[in-house]
Amino acid sequence: MQDVADRAGVSRTTVSFVINQVVDGAIPAETQQRVWDAVAALGYRPNAAARNLRMQRTHTIGFISDHIATTPFAGQMIQGAQDFAWEHGKLILLINTGGRQNMKADAAEALLERQVEGVLYASMYHREVTPPASLREVPTVLLDSYVADRSLPSVVPDEVNGGRAAVEHLIARGHSRIGMITNVDPIPATMGREKGFRAAMHHHMLPVDESLICAVQSDQAGGYSGGMQLLQRPKRPSAVFCFNDRVAMGLYQAAAELGLHIPAGLAIVGFDNQEVIAPSLRPALTTMQLPHYAMGRWAAEHLLQLIGTGVKDNPVQQMLECPLIERSSA
Amino acid sequence: MQDVADRAGVSRTTVSFVINQVVDGAIPAETQQRVWDAVAALGYRPNAAARNLRMQRTHTIGFISDHIATTPFAGQMIQGAQDFAWEHGKLILLINTGGRQNMKADAAEALLERQVEGVLYASMYHREVTPPASLREVPTVLLDSYVADRSLPSVVPDEVNGGRAAVEHLIARGHSRIGMITNVDPIPATMGREKGFRAAMHHHMLPVDESLICAVQSDQAGGYSGGMQLLQRPKRPSAVFCFNDRVAMGLYQAAAELGLHIPAGLAIVGFDNQEVIAPSLRPALTTMQLPHYAMGRWAAEHLLQLIGTGVKDNPVQQMLECPLIERSSA
Repeated sequence: MQDVADRAGVSRTTVSFVINQVVDGAIPAETQQRVWDAVAALGYRPNAAARNLRMQRTHTIGFISDHIATTPFAGQMIQGAQDFAWEHGKLILLINTGGRQNMKADAAEALLERQVEGVLYASMYHREVTPPASLREVPTVLLDSYVADRSLPSVVPDEVNGGRAAVEHLIARGHSRIGMITNVDPIPATMGREKGFRAAMHHHMLPVDESLICAVQSDQAGGYSGGMQLLQRPKRPSAVFCFNDRVAMGLYQAAAELGLHIPAGLAIVGFDNQEVIAPSLRPALTTMQLPHYAMGRWAAEHLLQLIGTGVKDNPVQQMLECPLIERSSA
Repeated sequence: MQDVADRAGVSRTTVSFVINQVVDGAIPAETQQRVWDAVAALGYRPNAAARNLRMQRTHTIGFISDHIATTPFAGQMIQGAQDFAWEHGKLILLINTGGRQNMKADAAEALLERQVEGVLYASMYHREVTPPASLREVPTVLLDSYVADRSLPSVVPDEVNGGRAAVEHLIARGHSRIGMITNVDPIPATMGREKGFRAAMHHHMLPVDESLICAVQSDQAGGYSGGMQLLQRPKRPSAVFCFNDRVAMGLYQAAAELGLHIPAGLAIVGFDNQEVIAPSLRPALTTMQLPHYAMGRWAAEHLLQLIGTGVKDNPVQQMLECPLIERSSA
C-alpha cells in the first residue's frame, strides 16, 4: 500500500479511502484516478498471495452487461467481442446482471477475483452508465455506453449521422414533406436521431413542419398511435422516419388501417435493423443498422490493446456508423 | 484476513468458512453477514486463484452454444443458467461458436484448460448434437438438445404437450375445423407439435382434414404463402395452429389481405412466444411459451448437482412444459 501511495503521490490513508470507497465525493476524481492507476501499475491487491498470482495471465476477460443476453438483437455485441477475443486466445467470463443494480459491484468483484485481464462493460442500449469503481483496477472499455466524465474509453453508434442518412435517403427518393415519430425518452438515441433528421432537412433547405413530429413510447403501440395522428393531419407527410423498427411496425398497422400503400402512399425508414421484424414486414422495412457486432469487435480490440500496453490515458470515444439497409419501404 | 476477523468479531477460521462457503448452514446468517460486511468495509478480496489452489475449485462453469447469443430469444437460456449459477457462487465462461463446426473441440479444450467444473452445451433450437468427446472429462448437461444415444443428461421443451395444449385451447373456444401450418424441416419441434395437434383432435374425436395441413419454411414468408393456400380452400379452417410466431406473423398478413378479422373470422395460436413479435401483432398473439429461462435454470441446477456428487450415471432426459400465453388472437 505504501508503494501505491508513493507512486500516486498521496497518503496511505487516501489510498485506503479510495480503494475502500469510504469517502467517494470527498477526494477529487483526478486524485482517485492517480490511485487507481498506481494500483493497476503495481498490480496491488490487499493480499500478498494475490499479487504473486496476478503476475500469471488468465487469458480471460470479463463481460458485464445488463440485459444484453436477453435483448433480441444486442447479443451481436457479445458475439463480436467474443470473436475478436477468441482470435487472440482470450475467453469471456459473462455476467448479465438483468438490471439488478446491487449486482454490479459483486459482478466486478467476482471477475477481479478470477483475475480477468480486463473488462468489457456493456449496456443493452446507448446510455450513460456508472460502472463499479473497482473496475478501475483493470483496463475497462464501455460498450454502447459511456460515463459522464468520459474518463473510460467507449464505443457507441453514431446516432446523428444514422438519423441524417435515413432522412437523406427519403429526400433522395423525392420526398420533402417528411415526418418523424420519435421517442419520448430523452436518451442519446432520441436526441441524436432527431438531430440527424433536422440536419438533413436543413442541409437540403427543406422546412421542418413541427406538426409532423410526434413523440411516443418507442414500441409498436406507440408507433400505431403516432401514425394515426400524423396520417390524419390535413396535410399528411409523404414519408416518415421512425425512431426504431418497432415504432415502424406500429406505423405499418396505422397505414394499413387508413388504406395507405407502402411505399407509394407512404414511405417509411426505421432504425435498428431488428432481424425478427425488419425483413418480415410487408413490404420489408428499409432501416438503419445498429452496429452491434462491429461495436463488440471494436471494444474487444481496444481492450486487448490496453491490456497489452498498459497505457490508459487519453480514453477514446469511438462512434461507429449505422449503415442503411435498403429494402422496400422507401 | 485477521483484520476481517477482528472487525467482524469472529475467528479467522470462521472468516475462512464463510468466504469459502464450506459450512453454509452451520454459521448463523447474522454472523455470515458480519463477515461479509467486514470484507466489504476493508476491501478484502479473497483471491480466487489462491483459493482454487487450496480447494482445487475454480467455481467456474463453461457454456458452449452455437447461435444462442445472437438468437432473438434463446438468450433467456444463458440468463437462466447464469442466474442459478450466480446464486451458487459460480460464474460462466461463455463460448458461442456461431455454428463453426471446427470450433467446438477447441472451445472444449479452452474451457478444460481453465479448469471449469462442468459444461453446459446448448443449441439455439431443440435438436440432436454431437459435443466434442473431451467434454466427457467433466460433468456435462445438454440444453435444448440431446445426443443420439441419450448418454448425457439433457433438458428440452415438451413439444408434444405444447402442441396439444395449443389445439386444446382452440377446441375449448368452440373450433372444430382446425388447420395447421407446420414446418418443412423434420426436426423434433416439427414432429412433436404436429403430433400434439393430432392427439388433441383425436382426443376430442374431431376429424383431421389433411388438406388443412400445409408445411412451409418456418418464417413469415412461409406463413404468408401457407395462409394464402389454407384460407382460399373451398371450406377454409376457422382456426389455425402455427408452427411458430414468425409463421403466425405471415398468416396475419394473409388474413388481412383476404379481409378476415382475427379472431372472429380466423383464430390463431402460435408457438415460441417471441417477445419482439407476439405482443406486437394486432391483435396480440396467443402462443405457447418456449421455456428457455426454465431450461437454463434446470440445466445449471442439474450440472451443479453432478459437480457436487460426482455421480454421472443414469442420465436424465427432462422435458419442460410450454405454457399457454393467452392474448387476443384465439
